[in-house]
Amino acid sequence: MISIDYTNVMADTIGERDGLLREELLSLKYILREAHYRIQKNLDKQYYFLKIPEIDTTEIKEYANYVKENFEYFVLVGIGGSSLGTEMLFQSLKWINYNQFHHPKFYVLDNVEPEKVASVLELIDINKTCFNVISKSGSTIETIANFMVVLDLLKEKVGEKWNKHIVITTDPDKGFLREFAKKHSIKTFDVPSNVSGRFSVLSAVGLFPASVVGIDIDDLLDGAKRMKQLCLVEEHVEHNPAYLIAVLHFLANMRRKKSIAVMMPYVERLSRFVDWWRQLWAESLGKDELGQTPVKAMGTIDQHSQIQLYREGIKDKIITFITVDNPYRDIKIPENLPEELGFLKGKTLNQLLKGELIGTKAAFIKSKIPNLTITLDKLSPYNIGMLIIMYELATAVSGFLYKVNPFDQPAVEEGKEFMYAWIGKKGYEEKLEELKDIYKERYKLKIK
Amino acid sequence: MISIDYTNVMADTIGERDGLLREELLSLKYILREAHYRIQKNLDKQYYFLKIPEIDTTEIKEYANYVKENFEYFVLVGIGGSSLGTEMLFQSLKWINYNQFHHPKFYVLDNVEPEKVASVLELIDINKTCFNVISKSGSTIETIANFMVVLDLLKEKVGEKWNKHIVITTDPDKGFLREFAKKHSIKTFDVPSNVSGRFSVLSAVGLFPASVVGIDIDDLLDGAKRMKQLCLVEEHVEHNPAYLIAVLHFLANMRRKKSIAVMMPYVERLSRFVDWWRQLWAESLGKDELGQTPVKAMGTIDQHSQIQLYREGIKDKIITFITVDNPYRDIKIPENLPEELGFLKGKTLNQLLKGELIGTKAAFIKSKIPNLTITLDKLSPYNIGMLIIMYELATAVSGFLYKVNPFDQPAVEEGKEFMYAWIGKKGYEEKLEELKDIYKERYKLKIK
Repeated sequence: MISIDYTNVMADTIGERDGLLREELLSLKYILREAHYRIQKNLDKQYYFLKIPEIDTTEIKEYANYVKENFEYFVLVGIGGSSLGTEMLFQSLKWINYNQFHHPKFYVLDNVEPEKVASVLELIDINKTCFNVISKSGSTIETIANFMVVLDLLKEKVGEKWNKHIVITTDPDKGFLREFAKKHSIKTFDVPSNVSGRFSVLSAVGLFPASVVGIDIDDLLDGAKRMKQLCLVEEHVEHNPAYLIAVLHFLANMRRKKSIAVMMPYVERLSRFVDWWRQLWAESLGKDELGQTPVKAMGTIDQHSQIQLYREGIKDKIITFITVDNPYRDIKIPENLPEELGFLKGKTLNQLLKGELIGTKAAFIKSKIPNLTITLDKLSPYNIGMLIIMYELATAVSGFLYKVNPFDQPAVEEGKEFMYAWIGKKGYEEKLEELKDIYKERYKLKIK
Repeated sequence: MISIDYTNVMADTIGERDGLLREELLSLKYILREAHYRIQKNLDKQYYFLKIPEIDTTEIKEYANYVKENFEYFVLVGIGGSSLGTEMLFQSLKWINYNQFHHPKFYVLDNVEPEKVASVLELIDINKTCFNVISKSGSTIETIANFMVVLDLLKEKVGEKWNKHIVITTDPDKGFLREFAKKHSIKTFDVPSNVSGRFSVLSAVGLFPASVVGIDIDDLLDGAKRMKQLCLVEEHVEHNPAYLIAVLHFLANMRRKKSIAVMMPYVERLSRFVDWWRQLWAESLGKDELGQTPVKAMGTIDQHSQIQLYREGIKDKIITFITVDNPYRDIKIPENLPEELGFLKGKTLNQLLKGELIGTKAAFIKSKIPNLTITLDKLSPYNIGMLIIMYELATAVSGFLYKVNPFDQPAVEEGKEFMYAWIGKKGYEEKLEELKDIYKERYKLKIK
């Protein structure tokens, strides 16, 4: 069960300067109706992410079991949409110390920073490692570079059966990784071609690694299906959680100048959830000089770092708190306390944590900072599945509100082209000229 | 050696709509002169953070050696200004896998989330653990609650010598922790009373734990002293790195509407540096509806997540890249590459990483996104010491520019008071009435 409490986004709590009127929410009825209709009609096209929870998980679970039984380490090689979702599943649904006490131990090779790569390679025994290489296009440069490093090691250490240590997740038909897998008889999974990377966590991209580390992916998909079913039936903003999230953020942004969306869980296990959402929100909606900047914060830690700014800095933020009603653990604060701390007697750490959230929210209400609270009854695959579809659909619907295409990322390409040019790839000679032309060091200060 | 390249913040590179004119930088001469004079004059008062690098480190190093030789685990109990700086030192200056291969293993108890606390307690043997409890006021609620949990365990497991497992870092004279230490003959270090938490990393707050994990704190302080010396002599914005950082960000904010400051290292070891800076920037300057929102990003990972937004979303950002010229490790991309990847032949991962940064910067120049690059010749204590003083002083000088007091945090208090009220602390009965009055749940959507 999840709930969304948006009392503190509304004008009757924080006033009309910063808060929204119910009439404003309802005023987007026609555009939501249009969106609702178009989404239903294009479920096999750009909204296919809503259908992937229907996937048959038999093969995924079977191969995950094989990996679990035959390997001690499982390394995901992927970046962005190919890693953030899986890291989110792993962190939210497995105990913090999983790698210390369970196996296969799970690591991610995302960045191409040599020290980070070396630090992962140092922790594994390559003879006992399965690598899951994930790239939708099959040619993501960071992923391919890291894969080449791994491949060389595998061939050297494992010998001719190196191909049994690799699982490739990529486009069903095309791209370098697909060709490579065919040529070397490597086990593959598909990324559906009509789902873009950041919407793909509920495909084999996230499900296979999640299953390897022992997450109940059927429960995850049940939650996703429940949310999808509800959202496809209900078009009223006050009853459709995805539309509600979209509309609250859109109106706060466009009518109350809240150009920053902060997500601040009071659950450390959801820190990666925020990273996953950051990509979804930023890359889908940051277009045509529109969209909100997503910002990550963590309660209670950022009470000691960011709260001063959120309350008394520029009034440009809407905050989403996330909390879990029934944590898996709690710790009693000891009875034998010094007098000054008498008020903590009989309390638990979780009660203190809850009190801190309530205190922060109350302070935000007084400063008229719009904030909503998402509460999970527990940190279960089912609830995470619901949240995933809710935020994916909220993002897609926001595309209608902002009138931008939430599924492309045209501005990402050019940096890559300049990189290719700099590194000397053939065909990029003109780009290299352009680079030389614009890239200068005119103003520089050195300190020894 | 560090350098600051601010070519791409200037109008002659990215145009006058988004970039600054040299005349604008120079136009703040008189206010900088005033700031320069007042800082010099008040080095023993609010600018005492500039003097703490002069500290005699003998006692710190001696006691750190004792801890190193007698304990296998070292746990910092502290939050905000009492932990972020130390975590930054630890992460930037120790190898990523330090805890796997070295000792004492280092952990932090900051949050009061029971699962996180339990996950740390699960990894240590309390009989072999030294706890460094840090709180300037001596009464930070999260720190005290976690300390009480630890204390109970210590008394139970270690017996009468429990006090030998604790080091307290707090105000020299007052507060609960100081009293407690006196009463139970616990080893203490001081937080200078005229330095606020977020400016205290170069006092015993950060130096003692850093020394325990084997960081050369004298080299760190040498870098800090070098930067301080330079900045106290030079008042010209183009020659004083701290003033330069302050002025570039202030002008970008107030004259070009860049209300968001992104810090994006291409070095994973500097991820915690960004967290330390986030507190400094936000808590010091987020006042009177002024100040920038600090945002954390990481290259290359966020190229696949945030670059679309930074280039084509709202033009409200100034970006700081950080890069290291000579990394401690590099990895060669294998020679035996498929044809499609021929352009990577003979390259290293670090060259690719550098190419990605250059590509991203070039793309930002084309989109007229102001960006500066800080380059460290290597990741050394000396260079980190320079950066710390540079950003602390930049923050302090920004206080003059924005006309706010960078050393207080008035808006943090009220959330605590509401928390005390909710949890039932005596003397907060009126606050509890206020809480009941403003805290409602009027708009709520539940999904099962």
